[in-house]
Amino acid sequence: MNARTNITNRRLLNPTAELGLLAAITLVVLGQLSGSNLAKAPSTSEGNHAAVKINPLKPPAQGSIPVAFLISEGAVTIDFTGPWEVFQDVMVPGRTDHPFHLYTVSESTSPIHTSGGMKIVPEYTFGNAPAPKIIVIPAQSEPSEATLEWIRKSTKSTDVTMSVCTGAFVLAKTGLLSGKAATTFHGAFVSFANEFPEIHLKRGARFVEDGNLATAGGLSSGIDLALRVVERYFGREIAQKTAYNMEYQGLGWMNPDSNQAYSATPVSTAEHPLCVVCGMDVDPANGPKSVFKGATYYFCSDADKKTFDAAPDKFVNTDTKGL
Amino acid sequence: MNARTNITNRRLLNPTAELGLLAAITLVVLGQLSGSNLAKAPSTSEGNHAAVKINPLKPPAQGSIPVAFLISEGAVTIDFTGPWEVFQDVMVPGRTDHPFHLYTVSESTSPIHTSGGMKIVPEYTFGNAPAPKIIVIPAQSEPSEATLEWIRKSTKSTDVTMSVCTGAFVLAKTGLLSGKAATTFHGAFVSFANEFPEIHLKRGARFVEDGNLATAGGLSSGIDLALRVVERYFGREIAQKTAYNMEYQGLGWMNPDSNQAYSATPVSTAEHPLCVVCGMDVDPANGPKSVFKGATYYFCSDADKKTFDAAPDKFVNTDTKGL
Repeated sequence: MNARTNITNRRLLNPTAELGLLAAITLVVLGQLSGSNLAKAPSTSEGNHAAVKINPLKPPAQGSIPVAFLISEGAVTIDFTGPWEVFQDVMVPGRTDHPFHLYTVSESTSPIHTSGGMKIVPEYTFGNAPAPKIIVIPAQSEPSEATLEWIRKSTKSTDVTMSVCTGAFVLAKTGLLSGKAATTFHGAFVSFANEFPEIHLKRGARFVEDGNLATAGGLSSGIDLALRVVERYFGREIAQKTAYNMEYQGLGWMNPDSNQAYSATPVSTAEHPLCVVCGMDVDPANGPKSVFKGATYYFCSDADKKTFDAAPDKFVNTDTKGL
Repeated sequence: MNARTNITNRRLLNPTAELGLLAAITLVVLGQLSGSNLAKAPSTSEGNHAAVKINPLKPPAQGSIPVAFLISEGAVTIDFTGPWEVFQDVMVPGRTDHPFHLYTVSESTSPIHTSGGMKIVPEYTFGNAPAPKIIVIPAQSEPSEATLEWIRKSTKSTDVTMSVCTGAFVLAKTGLLSGKAATTFHGAFVSFANEFPEIHLKRGARFVEDGNLATAGGLSSGIDLALRVVERYFGREIAQKTAYNMEYQGLGWMNPDSNQAYSATPVSTAEHPLCVVCGMDVDPANGPKSVFKGATYYFCSDADKKTFDAAPDKFVNTDTKGL
């Protein structure tokens, strides 16, 4: 690494008196944004829901906090690289080391391709990965039983096992979310509700926390959930400083209700039908369709039409009715 | 790839009637944020500076737009993965393919380690990379002459060659920025100004555009510059829809002045001295120091002390005076 890289890295590692200055400037940033809904930091005194209650996590007395990023083919890039950058950038006064230790984990160390085709070599397998205190699960390929078992086993001793985007489906398949609250990518709400009726789906949440499980909304929401986790370990000032250093303008990490724009249940209409299986928009001119009990149902893909045709009763009782 | 990954990918590839719906919802999001400074979209009628003028780019009549991500050891993760996700997520009505073709480029295809230690295998070398229309340059290791030459040669036919964070130092070293305006990571302003006095440094800019060159601020700023590039090719509605799909709450891509919190020049004081070479904060109890013409100067590292001692006159005339 050279001088330029070091400018960033040294600064982020330099636990000096800058904290006071940065905190002051951060308050200026937040003050400038105070007209925004996003800037309205939640307060336990305001009766917000459980997710915003102070729920601190205790960092280890010594050493760093191991953070495992579970990746496989098709992993959505920002889902894990956003949280990666957040945890990487945390500075804690009095420490010269990184408070979080980051590593990728997969079923094997064969390279995987993330969304868009970036080639990443996982550092560890399930067999040799250090025991994590945090697991980050991005949207990715269908999980193997070995993957689910590793999550189940590792989550027994994690502080937070968190999903981002449709990574919630991977976490849900472990069974750990049953009876709990969760969220996912806004485009997958219908599909998630259909597939996991035993999970209380929160639409319009930036993130949801329930015990040692946490689920973020889509894509960039993972950055906010990671900042929230930083806050739980090291307090709001350190999380604010991390966001400040990242020049991150989003404030959703302080407000789990800030994704309300995505909370409405989409309605299927003749002009804009939704796939009755997954809730995605369908082009009625070209999309596959089926007639069931006199009503026409549209699908975003032949695969979803096949799923519907095999058990149509399962789908016509959901929010998305036939036209 | 499986069903879960496909939920995201199919949605992002599904150029159907959802555009109207999403645009409407996006307006709701923006409306909710309208109290924020960030939400104040720039208007050419308001006399804002050149960067916010409409400056459209023409997509090719056929095929996708090649986007090269120039990476090397130490590349700061979010600097390139943020823009990667933005370009990856763009949907254009009437197209079923991805409008942007993404690939990594490096001096060799040997794996590199990004900030935090993620292992990435570059797809192309300078010798075999497709000619890019967009180049993304994140913070990374000291550029080789071959790297600089590839940027100089490729930039002759790019629509945008963009840096993120201290990637601006790499771009500056090509000489292409001489006489032009640029910005960089807020923690590197002093260092940049010292090293490149021939470049007009804009402090507090989310991004700066000058001809076919563009420079973003630190880290997450690259997401905004990428959205801005999407807007220049395909218009504001497509860029808004991309941000909506990413659940991205930041609005800095519409306002290059939105990093004003970082615009003030830090002042070195006895309590909080700044490194006179790079501008970083120094712990006066432990940091290296030198006395020159009766004044004490502090440094963040022995390397910067050595740089100063070799030519102190070069530094005492900058904004950061000795104490």
